[in-house]
Amino acid sequence: MDFTYRMPTKIVFGRDCVRKNGALLSPLGGHALIVTGRSSKRNGALDDLLFALSENGQDATVFDRVTPNPGLSCIREGIALLESAGADFVVGVGGGSPMDAAKAIALLSVETRGDGAVFQGNYADCALPLAMIPTTAGTGSEVTPYSVLTDGEGETKRSIYSEALFPRLAFLDGKYTDALPETITKNTALDAFSHAVESLLSRAATPFSRLLAVESAKVVYPYLPRLSRLSENDRDALLFASSLAGMAIAQSGTTAVHGLGYCLTYFCGIDHGRANALLLGEALRLAREKGADLSLLEGACGESAEEIALCIDKLVSPREVIPREVLLDFAARSRTNKNIAKSVYEPSPKEVERIFLRSFGIND
Amino acid sequence: MDFTYRMPTKIVFGRDCVRKNGALLSPLGGHALIVTGRSSKRNGALDDLLFALSENGQDATVFDRVTPNPGLSCIREGIALLESAGADFVVGVGGGSPMDAAKAIALLSVETRGDGAVFQGNYADCALPLAMIPTTAGTGSEVTPYSVLTDGEGETKRSIYSEALFPRLAFLDGKYTDALPETITKNTALDAFSHAVESLLSRAATPFSRLLAVESAKVVYPYLPRLSRLSENDRDALLFASSLAGMAIAQSGTTAVHGLGYCLTYFCGIDHGRANALLLGEALRLAREKGADLSLLEGACGESAEEIALCIDKLVSPREVIPREVLLDFAARSRTNKNIAKSVYEPSPKEVERIFLRSFGIND
Repeated sequence: MDFTYRMPTKIVFGRDCVRKNGALLSPLGGHALIVTGRSSKRNGALDDLLFALSENGQDATVFDRVTPNPGLSCIREGIALLESAGADFVVGVGGGSPMDAAKAIALLSVETRGDGAVFQGNYADCALPLAMIPTTAGTGSEVTPYSVLTDGEGETKRSIYSEALFPRLAFLDGKYTDALPETITKNTALDAFSHAVESLLSRAATPFSRLLAVESAKVVYPYLPRLSRLSENDRDALLFASSLAGMAIAQSGTTAVHGLGYCLTYFCGIDHGRANALLLGEALRLAREKGADLSLLEGACGESAEEIALCIDKLVSPREVIPREVLLDFAARSRTNKNIAKSVYEPSPKEVERIFLRSFGIND
Repeated sequence: MDFTYRMPTKIVFGRDCVRKNGALLSPLGGHALIVTGRSSKRNGALDDLLFALSENGQDATVFDRVTPNPGLSCIREGIALLESAGADFVVGVGGGSPMDAAKAIALLSVETRGDGAVFQGNYADCALPLAMIPTTAGTGSEVTPYSVLTDGEGETKRSIYSEALFPRLAFLDGKYTDALPETITKNTALDAFSHAVESLLSRAATPFSRLLAVESAKVVYPYLPRLSRLSENDRDALLFASSLAGMAIAQSGTTAVHGLGYCLTYFCGIDHGRANALLLGEALRLAREKGADLSLLEGACGESAEEIALCIDKLVSPREVIPREVLLDFAARSRTNKNIAKSVYEPSPKEVERIFLRSFGIND
């Protein structure tokens, strides 16, 4: 077995951890660009962060114009603000969109690239220091070296990778997730679960990613049928598990489900976590039919792959109606996605069509 | 639950990983001080490292005068060589002694301290870049922020802690452990197992440390009765598990067993891993009597605490003969050790005496 493991982010976990441990932000710089959406004002995360920065004597500029699935224009706007404000580190506050935007801003403000080159990889692993405060329990972006952005030209979502995108710090405080609407709680939990499943089914899985993914699935799966009634402890557990899944995909990457789900988000505006969940059941059935080893997943969940697929199917019901020809177009578009070949059950083009069609109740 | 997690070391695992991934050493500096003992010349680790450094065009100076349980004079000698050679990073190659010496050299060459201040803590978290190549499967030092040294003045072993002691890189190649003598294989495996057990029984245990410690114990324990016949795969598994246990104690620290074992090493010259193992069975029995939760450990090992204690007892038999008054002196000396209070079963002074006495077959 040959593998590497790295996850250099320092995780600080616990209720009120930003206020209690805000001094950890001190070494990051003198002026923070805070990259966030609108919800961080409601859930208290932004206030906690501003308090901590002010206690440290650090300046802060807020960039709160991050929209879901941010594209390059959003990143350029953030970089312009960062430069005009003279910020020297970046804090992402929110779900995957603000955190991924924060990462791209921190990277592209150091390594300038034209739009055409942003997704061409080979970054010099140099970025402004990053800290993250997730306010949903799903993305895991706070502990990964990826930033997923909308690529308008390529008509999809694509990821940027650099070791420099690992944040220095991640503050995990479950209280920011307490008042999340049920839909967001569900979609983000399904995103985390999908990370764990996809990591386990990745050709790039390692002993570390398996350990982390199994533990994450073990925690998240029993919550899936009861996400409408969560205690504070449950919220904390889900936030912890979403970071475990993030640490897993930081090693193994995601696989076919994420690769195919991007089309659903880009063209149909379906939330990212839901997009994965819509495809996950059929992907699992295909993996089982093709003889993929599902024992770790089944062991973690305490149910068979079919039972897991049925559980997810139930959660995403009723499904969107998408016509056959649109789904076949998505299948064709997904063909070049690199994540597909990273699945141990590597779906053929025909099998990709099957996943798309069956996921929306259409015979293949 | 409030906790932090950090383990920034990049781990590269696999046979021939130093030669295959030597380029990773390039960013560390221009001139390496290699800190090692004598065995690294026999097991091939030193050759592999010198090859990698030379391929990178990096200079190397070898400091091979590290003795078991190094003290401050050894560290001073290493620093003098580092300075005269103009080395700007440090690579530790060997078991715990060379790795811990390498760490202390990298730290104390940046933050100069007199002998009396070395163990007083509060380091500025700044050290020369470090890489580690363990050649035993036990210490876990390659993934911890600790350096354990002999404190001649205090007549014990003591640890230095600094976040800067986390190595940048750890190369884990099981081939260096293939030809280890059975005694070293056994003592180091017992050290790793003791790390896992102590971490699980630490007041400072976290969800991460528990996950790592359980997995480590799960791997190591079944090997304990058959350490004399290990395949290459077995060696790899043990090396992986020893790093998992290291990552666990990087979070939780060690507890009473290590705290008490230092006396056995300092005064009786008993190997570190064996010293822990000699005390571990009685510590487990005490923990069970005091109602400590041993379910994770028992679950990982698939046996009861008493069965685990008996397994270890068998491995360390026959035990050294140490007179009662000497053991009582060790108990008195250990009283100030900070690790004792970190155990969930916090042994009282009387109970520390009991552990020492019963561990050497003397009624308390």
